[in-house]
Amino acid sequence: MKSVRLHEFHKPPVVDEVPGPTISGPLDVIVKIGGAGVCRTDLHIMEGQWDAAMHTPLPYILGHENAGWVHEVGSAVTNVAVGDTVILHPTPTCGLCRACRAGDDMHCVNSEFPGLSRDGGMAEYLLTSARACIKLDPQTRPQDVAALADAGITAYHAVRKAIPLLYPGTTCVVIGAGGLGHIGIQCLAALTATRIIVVDQNPEALKLAEQLGAQHTVVADGGHVAAVADLTGGAGANVVLDFVAEQGAENDGWSMTGRAGSYFVIGYGGTLTIPTLDIITTERNIIGNIVGTYNDLAELMVLAQTGKVTLHTRTYPLDAAPDAIADLDAGRVRGRAILVP
Amino acid sequence: MKSVRLHEFHKPPVVDEVPGPTISGPLDVIVKIGGAGVCRTDLHIMEGQWDAAMHTPLPYILGHENAGWVHEVGSAVTNVAVGDTVILHPTPTCGLCRACRAGDDMHCVNSEFPGLSRDGGMAEYLLTSARACIKLDPQTRPQDVAALADAGITAYHAVRKAIPLLYPGTTCVVIGAGGLGHIGIQCLAALTATRIIVVDQNPEALKLAEQLGAQHTVVADGGHVAAVADLTGGAGANVVLDFVAEQGAENDGWSMTGRAGSYFVIGYGGTLTIPTLDIITTERNIIGNIVGTYNDLAELMVLAQTGKVTLHTRTYPLDAAPDAIADLDAGRVRGRAILVP
Amino acid sequence: MKSVRLHEFHKPPVVDEVPGPTISGPLDVIVKIGGAGVCRTDLHIMEGQWDAAMHTPLPYILGHENAGWVHEVGSAVTNVAVGDTVILHPTPTCGLCRACRAGDDMHCVNSEFPGLSRDGGMAEYLLTSARACIKLDPQTRPQDVAALADAGITAYHAVRKAIPLLYPGTTCVVIGAGGLGHIGIQCLAALTATRIIVVDQNPEALKLAEQLGAQHTVVADGGHVAAVADLTGGAGANVVLDFVAEQGAENDGWSMTGRAGSYFVIGYGGTLTIPTLDIITTERNIIGNIVGTYNDLAELMVLAQTGKVTLHTRTYPLDAAPDAIADLDAGRVRGRAILVP
Amino acid sequence: MKSVRLHEFHKPPVVDEVPGPTISGPLDVIVKIGGAGVCRTDLHIMEGQWDAAMHTPLPYILGHENAGWVHEVGSAVTNVAVGDTVILHPTPTCGLCRACRAGDDMHCVNSEFPGLSRDGGMAEYLLTSARACIKLDPQTRPQDVAALADAGITAYHAVRKAIPLLYPGTTCVVIGAGGLGHIGIQCLAALTATRIIVVDQNPEALKLAEQLGAQHTVVADGGHVAAVADLTGGAGANVVLDFVAEQGAENDGWSMTGRAGSYFVIGYGGTLTIPTLDIITTERNIIGNIVGTYNDLAELMVLAQTGKVTLHTRTYPLDAAPDAIADLDAGRVRGRAILVP
Repeated sequence: MKSVRLHEFHKPPVVDEVPGPTISGPLDVIVKIGGAGVCRTDLHIMEGQWDAAMHTPLPYILGHENAGWVHEVGSAVTNVAVGDTVILHPTPTCGLCRACRAGDDMHCVNSEFPGLSRDGGMAEYLLTSARACIKLDPQTRPQDVAALADAGITAYHAVRKAIPLLYPGTTCVVIGAGGLGHIGIQCLAALTATRIIVVDQNPEALKLAEQLGAQHTVVADGGHVAAVADLTGGAGANVVLDFVAEQGAENDGWSMTGRAGSYFVIGYGGTLTIPTLDIITTERNIIGNIVGTYNDLAELMVLAQTGKVTLHTRTYPLDAAPDAIADLDAGRVRGRAILVP
Repeated sequence: MKSVRLHEFHKPPVVDEVPGPTISGPLDVIVKIGGAGVCRTDLHIMEGQWDAAMHTPLPYILGHENAGWVHEVGSAVTNVAVGDTVILHPTPTCGLCRACRAGDDMHCVNSEFPGLSRDGGMAEYLLTSARACIKLDPQTRPQDVAALADAGITAYHAVRKAIPLLYPGTTCVVIGAGGLGHIGIQCLAALTATRIIVVDQNPEALKLAEQLGAQHTVVADGGHVAAVADLTGGAGANVVLDFVAEQGAENDGWSMTGRAGSYFVIGYGGTLTIPTLDIITTERNIIGNIVGTYNDLAELMVLAQTGKVTLHTRTYPLDAAPDAIADLDAGRVRGRAILVP
Repeated sequence: MKSVRLHEFHKPPVVDEVPGPTISGPLDVIVKIGGAGVCRTDLHIMEGQWDAAMHTPLPYILGHENAGWVHEVGSAVTNVAVGDTVILHPTPTCGLCRACRAGDDMHCVNSEFPGLSRDGGMAEYLLTSARACIKLDPQTRPQDVAALADAGITAYHAVRKAIPLLYPGTTCVVIGAGGLGHIGIQCLAALTATRIIVVDQNPEALKLAEQLGAQHTVVADGGHVAAVADLTGGAGANVVLDFVAEQGAENDGWSMTGRAGSYFVIGYGGTLTIPTLDIITTERNIIGNIVGTYNDLAELMVLAQTGKVTLHTRTYPLDAAPDAIADLDAGRVRGRAILVP
Repeated sequence: MKSVRLHEFHKPPVVDEVPGPTISGPLDVIVKIGGAGVCRTDLHIMEGQWDAAMHTPLPYILGHENAGWVHEVGSAVTNVAVGDTVILHPTPTCGLCRACRAGDDMHCVNSEFPGLSRDGGMAEYLLTSARACIKLDPQTRPQDVAALADAGITAYHAVRKAIPLLYPGTTCVVIGAGGLGHIGIQCLAALTATRIIVVDQNPEALKLAEQLGAQHTVVADGGHVAAVADLTGGAGANVVLDFVAEQGAENDGWSMTGRAGSYFVIGYGGTLTIPTLDIITTERNIIGNIVGTYNDLAELMVLAQTGKVTLHTRTYPLDAAPDAIADLDAGRVRGRAILVP
C-alpha cells in the first residue's frame, strides 16, 4: 500500500509503497484510512524531539490522527464490524491496567501510539485495536472528522478538566487559536458560560476566534499580558489554556493566571521558570495535559455531530503529504491539513 | 504591653514596650496571647523577602501563629465571649467576598495578615476579628496548640487537597519532616491509607517521621531521587508534598512525581525550571498551597483534640524571642518554638 | 408603609398599613422594594404546609423573592451603600458557621428566611442584612430580576450540582416548565451540552421550553414515562430535575431515571415510595435541593446580565397582591407574577 | 466436578456432580476455587427476589464471592498465568462500554454475574474472564480473602464514595455490623477521621464494632433513632451507611441523616416512604450503592494486605454448603461463612 514514511530526522518524509498490515491478535482491527491529520507534532517528530520519549522507530509511517472504515477484524472483536465508519482513539490501550479501568486511559501502562511509537495512519490502511474504535454515523465522512482524533481530543480533554473552574463570572484565556485552539474555544462555548479571551499573533486566527465564541481577542504583540490584566481588572484569569507553551507563551500564560487560578499546559517546546514563592503566595496551579481518553473523544463526537464543534480543514491527497507538511511548517494552513488516501 | 518588634530588615527584632490594641469596630476581638509560634517565615520576613507582597510595616510586631483567650470584644461579636480559649485563623477575612463565601477564605480579597501586614501576636495582646476565632475546649493550653495556627493549617490544607489522589495503593512523598512536615505526616496517616515516604537531610527528623506514620524514610544526601525511584518501582510518587521547595528540593520533588501525579509546593525559596514538554508527556501537575481556610483549622483542631495530631514544641518566654529566632535559624529547634508571654 | 400580610391560614392575605422596618444592628440593611415575586410556596404557606418547619409568625408580611434599592444601612456595612440597586439572597446568613464558611450558606445554622420565618418583601421596605445583598448594574430594573432571587436561584443551584453528570451524550429530563423550570432549562442550555427533554402537562409551557433550548418535549398525559423510555432507548435519563415532585410526578421522575442516574427533587408536595432493592440494583441516587447559595445567585445574575437567562414575568401593583395570588393558584400566570410597590 | 446448585426457589441447594467449565473465548479464564463466600444475597436468590432482575437460570451453581488459583486461560489472556493466586471481581465486564472505560465498571452494559445470572463459584472450578482477575501475593490463602470479593468490595465502594463527606468533625452512622458492616467500619477507620457510631441489634456485633474502630455503639432496640440524635446534639449524622435497609432500618436510617447529609442504601429488602417536602427542606440525599469496581477491589486488597482490614470468617467444606446456608439464615454465623472445596 501507499504510505508516508519518515526515514531520517530533519528530512522530509517519503511516499513509499509498503506491505499493508495484517491481523495477528484476536482484538486487532485494520482500518481503511479516510482521513489522516497533519499535526505540529509531526514536525516535532521530524526534528527528533520525541525520540527520547517514544524511540521513534525509523523508518516508519507517520500519522496519529485518523478516521476511516473498518476493513478487517480479529476473531474476538465484538464492538465493530467490517464496513463500520470509525474514528480512532490515538493510543490503543490494554483495558486491564489501573489507568484504563479508572477512566484515565491516556495513562495506560501498555499503550502504543501509532504514528509515534509504530506505524501510523498516513497510509491506505492502519493496524489498531478494538478498544481504539469509536463507531460513527455511517454518513460521516472520515476526512471531515479525522482532526478530532488528536487536535480535537486534546483540546476537549483540557477544557473538560477546566469546567469546574469556569462557573459564570470567571474568565478563561486561550493562548493560540490554531488547530487545537479553535476547537478549544468551541468546547468552552458549548460547555461553560465563562468569558473567553483569545490571544494569538495572527489577526485572522483572532477573527475566527470571535466567530467561534470569544468575547475578547488580543493580538500577541508584546502588550498582551498587560491587555489581559486590563480585561480582568488586574486580577488575571481563572484559567489559562495554553495551546502554544513555547517561545515565551509559557511564561506569559503563567503571568496571566490570577490568584488561585490554574495554568493549563497543552502546547510544548518552551521552558517554565517560576520561583516557588510566586506559586505559594497566590496558590496557583500548573496543570499538565496530554491527549485525552476514549470517552473524551466519544463526547467530542457528540458535540461535532450536533454542530457545536466544527472543524476548519484543508485536504491533500496522500501523495501530497510532503506539501501538506511544508505548508504547515510555513504557517500556510488555516485550521487543519488532512491527507485523504 | 510587651511586644517583639522588627525595626529593620537584616537585624534581630527587639522586645519593646508599646500601647496595647483597642477595639474600634463592632466585630473586633482582642486576644490575650497564650502562645505565639516562631516560624521560618519570620526569618524570611526579617530578610525582606515578604516586603514586596506584604509591604512589611516597619517597625511592627511579629507573630502570625497565635492562640490565647478572648480579652475584649466589639459590640456585634456573637461567636465568642470574653474568657473563651481560642486559636486564631491567621488571616482575618471579610466574609463578604466570593472567596470567603466559597469556602476559600485564604483568598479573601480584603484579608489582613497580622504578623506580616500589621501587628502580630508576639506580644501580650493581639487585635483580630470575630471571624478569625475558633473556640476551643477551655482546658486547652494555648501554648500547646498555637503552632497549629500556621504550620498546622498549612500542612493540613495541602494534605486535605491531596486526599482524593491518595487512595490505597498510592505513594506519597513528603519532603521535609520539620515544623510543617511532621504535622503533614500525621494528617496523611489520619486521613488516608497511602504509603508515606519521607525525605529529609536530618536523621533525627526521619526517626520522628517513622514514629508518626512514615513507612519509608530517605536521607536527602544526593541519592534521594534515585531512592524514591527504587521505592516506587521506577514509577515515581502519585503525590509529592514539598515542605521545603528551596535549595534544589523543588526540582528533586518534581523529579520524584510520577506520571499523572501532582507535585504540591508548600515551602518556598527556590525556583522551578521545567520544560513544557516534560509537563505534557506525563500530564503532571504543580499545585500551589498557601495557609488554609478557617474550616481547615477547625478540622485540624478535631484531629488534635482526638490525639491524631500532636505537636513537638519548645517554649520560650516572650523576652527570649531573639533567642528563639536565633535557635530556629541555626537549626537548633526540634518541632516548633513557641513564645509564651 | 403598605404591606401584604397573612393573618390566618387558608385565608387570602390582606393589604395592611404597618410601620416600616428600622435598623438595629450594625450589619442591618433596609431595602426599598422594586419587585417582589409571588411563588407557589406562598400558596403552600397559606395552606399551613410550612408552619411546622418555619413556625409561620402570623400575622406577617409575605414575600421571599425580592430586589430593590438600598435605603438605609447599619454602621458596619461596607459592601453596599444607600442607593445601590440590589437583588437579595433569600436567607440572610451569619457568615460564621461552618456551612457559611464552606460555601454552603443555604445551610447556615443561624439563617432567617424573610417571607417565611419573619416579615418579607411584599411591602415598600424590607429589613435584611449586608451579607444578603448582591449589588447590580444601576441600570437594572428590580422588577425584571426579582424572580431570580428564589425561583432562579433554586433552579440554578440544582442545575449547577448536576453539571458534572451532564457531559455530552447524556440526557436530562426536566419535569415542569413553569416558574422554576423555564429558568432551569436556560441554565442547562447555557452550562452543558446535554440533551434536554422537558415534560409538562401544558402544551404552551412546552412550546416555551423548546424556544429556551429543549431538544424534545413530552406532554405529561399518562404516556410520558414510556415516552422518555423511548427517547432514551430504554435506558432512562442520566439526570431528572423534578420541579414538580407532587401529584405523582415524583414517582414518575424516579422511573425515568436510568441506571447510575440521579433524580433531583426540587418541587415538593408528593411522597416517594421506593423499595431499597430498586435503589441498589441500579445504584441510583435521589438528590435533595433547597434554594441556593449567595454565590449561586451572583453567578445566575451573570447569566441574566449576559442574556443567557431571561425571565417571563407579569407585574401587578402591590395592592393587587390578592389578585396575583389568585391568578397563580388558578394557573393563569405564565412565567412569574411580580408585585411592584 | 462437585458443585452447589439451586434447582428450585424456596428449596435448599443440592450438592451435584456436574461437568467442569471449558475455555471457549480467547479472554476466558478458569479458576480453581479456594474459597467461596456464602452471602445473604444467596438467601434472597433462593427466595426468588432476584429472579426479575437476573432471570435466575435454574438449575445453576450458586456463589458470587470467589478466590482461588488460575487453572486455565484463553489464547489472548496476558494479565494472569496458570497457577496465579487470584481474587475475582464479581461481575466480569466487557472493557469496551462507556461505563467500563469511565472507571464505573459495575455499570458495564455487557457484564455477567456468576452466581446470579449464570454458574457461580460454589464448585471446584469457575469460568470467569481475564478482566475479572486480581493477582495476589502467592502466599495468600484464597479462603482468607474470598469474602472481600463481594461483602468487602460492596462495603469499600460505599465508604470510598462517602470519603469527601467525612472530614474531621463529622459523624458517620453505620447500620449493621455483620458481614458487610464489619468491613465498612474498618474501611472508615482506615480512610477517614470521622466519628463512627454503629447501630446493630446484636450486642456481640457491637462489641466487635468497637474493636474495629467504632467510637460509639447503639443497640437497635427501638430507642436507637433517639440515641443517635442525642449523640449528634440533635443534628443527625453527615452520612448514614445502611448495610441492612430492611425491616424498618431504612426509614430509621433516613431519620438519622442530618441536614445536607447523605443516606447510603447498601442493604435491601425494605421500602422507603419519604415526603418530597422532607427531602427539600433539609437538602438530604439518598445514595444507591451496588458492588464496586475492579479498582475498588484492588484497593481493598491493599488494605487487607497491610492489615488495615481483616475478616472474621468460618469455613465449611463444599459438601456442607446446605449447613452453611442454614447457619447464615438462622443468624449462627459471626462474620462470613466460606466454603472451601
